[in-house]
Amino acid sequence: MIYNNSYLNHKKIQSLNFLGLFIMKICIIGANGMVGKKLVKKILSSDLDQAQIKKVCLFDINLNKKNHTRVTHIKGNLEDLTQIRKLASERFDIIFHLAAIVSGEAEENFEKGWNVNLFSMWHLLIALKTEHMSSSNTYIPKLIFTSSIAVFGAPFPNKIDDEFLCSPQTSYGAQKASAELLISDFSRKGYIDGISLRLPTICVRPGLPNKAASGFFSNIIREPLNGQKAFLPVDITVRHWHASPRTAADFLIHAALLDYSLLKNRRSLNLPGVSCTVEEQIEALRSVAGQKVVDLIIFKKDENIEKMVSGWPKNFFPQKALELGFKAENNFEEIIKIHITDELVSS
Amino acid sequence: MIYNNSYLNHKKIQSLNFLGLFIMKICIIGANGMVGKKLVKKILSSDLDQAQIKKVCLFDINLNKKNHTRVTHIKGNLEDLTQIRKLASERFDIIFHLAAIVSGEAEENFEKGWNVNLFSMWHLLIALKTEHMSSSNTYIPKLIFTSSIAVFGAPFPNKIDDEFLCSPQTSYGAQKASAELLISDFSRKGYIDGISLRLPTICVRPGLPNKAASGFFSNIIREPLNGQKAFLPVDITVRHWHASPRTAADFLIHAALLDYSLLKNRRSLNLPGVSCTVEEQIEALRSVAGQKVVDLIIFKKDENIEKMVSGWPKNFFPQKALELGFKAENNFEEIIKIHITDELVSS
Repeated sequence: MIYNNSYLNHKKIQSLNFLGLFIMKICIIGANGMVGKKLVKKILSSDLDQAQIKKVCLFDINLNKKNHTRVTHIKGNLEDLTQIRKLASERFDIIFHLAAIVSGEAEENFEKGWNVNLFSMWHLLIALKTEHMSSSNTYIPKLIFTSSIAVFGAPFPNKIDDEFLCSPQTSYGAQKASAELLISDFSRKGYIDGISLRLPTICVRPGLPNKAASGFFSNIIREPLNGQKAFLPVDITVRHWHASPRTAADFLIHAALLDYSLLKNRRSLNLPGVSCTVEEQIEALRSVAGQKVVDLIIFKKDENIEKMVSGWPKNFFPQKALELGFKAENNFEEIIKIHITDELVSS
Repeated sequence: MIYNNSYLNHKKIQSLNFLGLFIMKICIIGANGMVGKKLVKKILSSDLDQAQIKKVCLFDINLNKKNHTRVTHIKGNLEDLTQIRKLASERFDIIFHLAAIVSGEAEENFEKGWNVNLFSMWHLLIALKTEHMSSSNTYIPKLIFTSSIAVFGAPFPNKIDDEFLCSPQTSYGAQKASAELLISDFSRKGYIDGISLRLPTICVRPGLPNKAASGFFSNIIREPLNGQKAFLPVDITVRHWHASPRTAADFLIHAALLDYSLLKNRRSLNLPGVSCTVEEQIEALRSVAGQKVVDLIIFKKDENIEKMVSGWPKNFFPQKALELGFKAENNFEEIIKIHITDELVSS
C-alpha cells in the first residue's frame, strides 16, 4: 500500500505520453532476442510524441538491420570491452539490458556464462560510471535489466514473497543474482539508476527452440498449434510461473516509466505471472484448440531437465510489483490466446 | 531438527581429534588479520594429532613471519593473478578465506573493493577449478569464506531468519553477497566444497582501529578498558549483532569439521551472536569494569556512520547454524570478559 499513492501521482504526471517527456536516447542490448524484438516493435509503433525519442539503438550479437529513421544498429559482442565502452559513450538515457547466455548454455559452458552474464555487466557499469564521472555527475542513465526467477532455488514456501532469499540452483540464476547486486550497488552510489526485473518464464516463446532448459513449457503449446509434435520432458504435475512475451515487453515499458525511488533501495523486483501446472497448461490448450492439437504432445522424460526444473519456483506473491502497477495475464488460456493473436494471426 | 542427527553422527566420527583425520594441508588467506591470527593460534596450539597436518600456509598482504616447523608464509596480494594460481597449485585440502577490503575502505575506493572482494575470489575459484579438472576431478578443496551480516539491508523483520533476502546497503555487503553466489555455484558444480559464514560484527576487536565502519562498537569497550577515551558516533539506542574474536575462530574451526551436504545447497549461513543495544554494551562495561571506565566514552555524532549503521541488521534467528552446532556468547558481558581474558590478561 505504501507505494500506491506516490505511484499514482507519478503515473499521472507521466501519463500524457508513452515514454515520458525526458527520454531522448534509448539503447536495447539484446534487441534481437525474443523479448527484445517485441520491445523494439512496441517502442517504435507506440502512440508517443515521436520527437521525444531522438534515437533508438539496437545492440545484439545477431541483427537483421531494417531501415528506420530513428533506429541505429550495432552488431556487437558484450565480451568486447571496446564495444562496451563505445556503447556507454553514447550516453543513452535508458538502457534496456536483455542480453544473456541462457540457462542450458550457461550450464554447459560455465566460464562463458559467467563472462557474459556477470562480467560484461561489470564492464558496462564501469563504463557508465566513467561517463557519469566525466559529466560532473549529471549523467545517470536508467538501466532496466531482465533478471529471472532462476535467482530462486528450492525449497520454496507456497508462494515466494518479496523478501525471500536468492538461492539459485543454476549458474544462470547465480549470474542473474550477482548482476542484480552490481546494479543495486552502482545505483546506490548514484552512478546509474537501475532496476532488475525478475521475469517469469516467458511463454509461449515464438520461433525456434533455444537452449533455455525452460523451453519445453513453450514447445508443448507452440509446436502442436503448428501441427507439429512436441516432447514433454517432465511430469504433468510440475507447477511453474509464466507470462507472455507481450507482457514481458509491457513490463519493460512500465519499468521505464517508474520512479525508482519508490523501490526504497530494493531494486530487484519479482514480477506478476500465472502459476499453473503442465496439466493446466495442457487443459488450457485443449480448451482453446481442441483434443487433436493436444494429442501432438508426447511424454518423453528427460532426467536432466526434470532435475533442473525441480529446483525452480512454482508460485509468487509479487506484492511490490503489483502495487507499482505491473500486470500479467490472469490464466494460461489468456497466454495461449495472446500467442495466437500475436504470432499466428498478426504476423 | 533435520540437521541434528546427521550432524551428531558426523561429529562423533570426527571427534577423535580437532581437525579430523583427512586434513593434510591448510591455507589461511588473510592470516594476519584480527580473526586470522586467532585462527592460526588455535590451529597450531590445539590438542590434535599434529602428524595429520602436514602444512599450514599463511597468506596475507602483511605478514610477521615466525618460525614454526609446519608453517609456511606467503606475503602476497590477491590482486596478483600469478600468486593466486600459485596458491591454488598447492592443492590445499582446506582454504580459509578471510581476506577483505573492509566496509569503510570499500565505500571510499569503489573499484578496489569490487576487485579484491569479488574478482579476486573469481580468480581463486577458477584457479581451484583448474586444479580440480587436472586432478581428474578428485581434488575438491573445502573453502571456508568469512562473509558478513552486511549482506542484509533494512528494512528488517524483528529477527532475520535463514530465508531472508540479501539486500546490502554497502559495497562491502554487495561484494560479500556476490562472492557467496560464486562459492555456491562452484560448489554446486563440484569444483570446490564451499561454505560462506556470515559473521556477526566481531567485538571486541583488539589492536588499533581499522577502516571498518563498525569499529566503534569495539572502540567504546577496548579504549576505556585501556584508560583511553573513545568516541561514540551513534545513538545509544542502536541495536546490533555481535560475537567475540574467540568465537569467530571457533566458528571457522567448526565449519572445517562440517559435512556440507547438511547445508542442502544453501551454503551461506547466518551465525549465532548477541543482539544488544549500545546502551546495553555500556551497561555491561559498567558492570564488568565500573563507572570510571564508562566515563571515558564520549558521544560525538557522525552522520556518515549513523547512516550506514541504520541499514545494518539488529537481530537474528540463525536456526540452521544453531542446529549445526555453531555457538556464540550468551550476552555482552561474556564478550567483554573474553576480551579481558584473551587480550588483557593472557597476551
